[in-house]
Amino acid sequence: MTYCVGIKVNGGLVFCSDSRTNSGIDQGGLSKKLFTFHQPGACIYYLLVSGNLATTQAVVSRIESDLAMADTQSLFTMNSIRNAADYIGQLSLAEQGKAGSSSMFQASFILGGQISGQSPDLVMIYPEGNAIAATELMPFLQIGESKYGKPILDRIIKLDTNLETCALCALVSMDSTLKSNLSVGPPIDLAIYHSGALQPGEAYHLPEDSAYLREIHDSWNQKMIDSFLQLPPLSSVVN
Amino acid sequence: MTYCVGIKVNGGLVFCSDSRTNSGIDQGGLSKKLFTFHQPGACIYYLLVSGNLATTQAVVSRIESDLAMADTQSLFTMNSIRNAADYIGQLSLAEQGKAGSSSMFQASFILGGQISGQSPDLVMIYPEGNAIAATELMPFLQIGESKYGKPILDRIIKLDTNLETCALCALVSMDSTLKSNLSVGPPIDLAIYHSGALQPGEAYHLPEDSAYLREIHDSWNQKMIDSFLQLPPLSSVVN
Repeated sequence: MTYCVGIKVNGGLVFCSDSRTNSGIDQGGLSKKLFTFHQPGACIYYLLVSGNLATTQAVVSRIESDLAMADTQSLFTMNSIRNAADYIGQLSLAEQGKAGSSSMFQASFILGGQISGQSPDLVMIYPEGNAIAATELMPFLQIGESKYGKPILDRIIKLDTNLETCALCALVSMDSTLKSNLSVGPPIDLAIYHSGALQPGEAYHLPEDSAYLREIHDSWNQKMIDSFLQLPPLSSVVN
Repeated sequence: MTYCVGIKVNGGLVFCSDSRTNSGIDQGGLSKKLFTFHQPGACIYYLLVSGNLATTQAVVSRIESDLAMADTQSLFTMNSIRNAADYIGQLSLAEQGKAGSSSMFQASFILGGQISGQSPDLVMIYPEGNAIAATELMPFLQIGESKYGKPILDRIIKLDTNLETCALCALVSMDSTLKSNLSVGPPIDLAIYHSGALQPGEAYHLPEDSAYLREIHDSWNQKMIDSFLQLPPLSSVVN
């Protein structure tokens, strides 16, 4: 399983992923799920991947080989993030098709970034190859095991939330998911993109023994318990 | 959709359900999902229902008609909660079978209560008719849309948590689910059973305009935001 979240706010974009993969509970591993593709001054893309590992690895490999060839359609020749999403959606369908028509081989992606002269954008690419974009009313997109970590995003993320707060919220969302689903696990990758920069912003790679991850986990757990104990008691119910 | 949770701790049992039903987003309604069956001094059962409404209504109707007949196997003739779960599992399979073999007609149940001379027990009955019991390591059981509301239960519910705290935790778990899934909605039914009582404990029926529900919702939301803002900042990451 996987949990990835992408956030688009006025200040820019945030991406967060876990790193655990498994093919059944007795065959687990680790795999990077956050990729960056950058042509200095021209464009930058962040890609989060979820689903069948053979499919996602093949798609990333195809993206890289297209970038390495001249005169070929690639991420660096796209004129919008939307078109880039279509391109990745078609790569995904082609790779899934090689393995037969089973839904076992499906994959989902979150793609975000910016092309020079355009605004940043963020889209989620479905296994069927089509895509939806983040909007003002829905400023974050999730793939994988998305439910445990959604409530805190719903509460915190607004268009004017600053990027550092968005990144911290992504980590807390990840922490709730780690706590409730064994198949999602560290290292956690976290990346911030500042609107207009056209170059990578802050990036964090937090391993399992990260003191900061542990601090967030313990601190959030204690704050949840303390907050809960301050709620108005049931004995005050009048209707 | 539905969200129901049952909790078993040293002090007794807690049950909580929403009331929304739907057959597609354009055909919504309300239906009671928490039922009590009580033979004073002998036994008491609480039943939470989830899944196809035709199946769950038929099962509850069969339970009631069996109780009304003399010399018939019924909830009041069972010698354990486990056996009562088997009985309800068989009723469920029989009703599902009437409608064909489609998984559309599946239903799940949480059954808890106490039979005189025995300890309280709590079980979840799968659509296939088999059941699992709550244990010391897993003191709560959920049916329906269970993921949004699981993190707070994981944090708060221990065997020695008192019943009022468990009930409040069930409400907060319900609130997170209401916030993230439109197909789960009030009125909220909440019931507490005190171990050994063999009679119903406190019961609350909280309608959509309940001042208490609103207070829990607003208070919890504000506490989440306040707690979040007190977390150690990302700028303190050293690994």
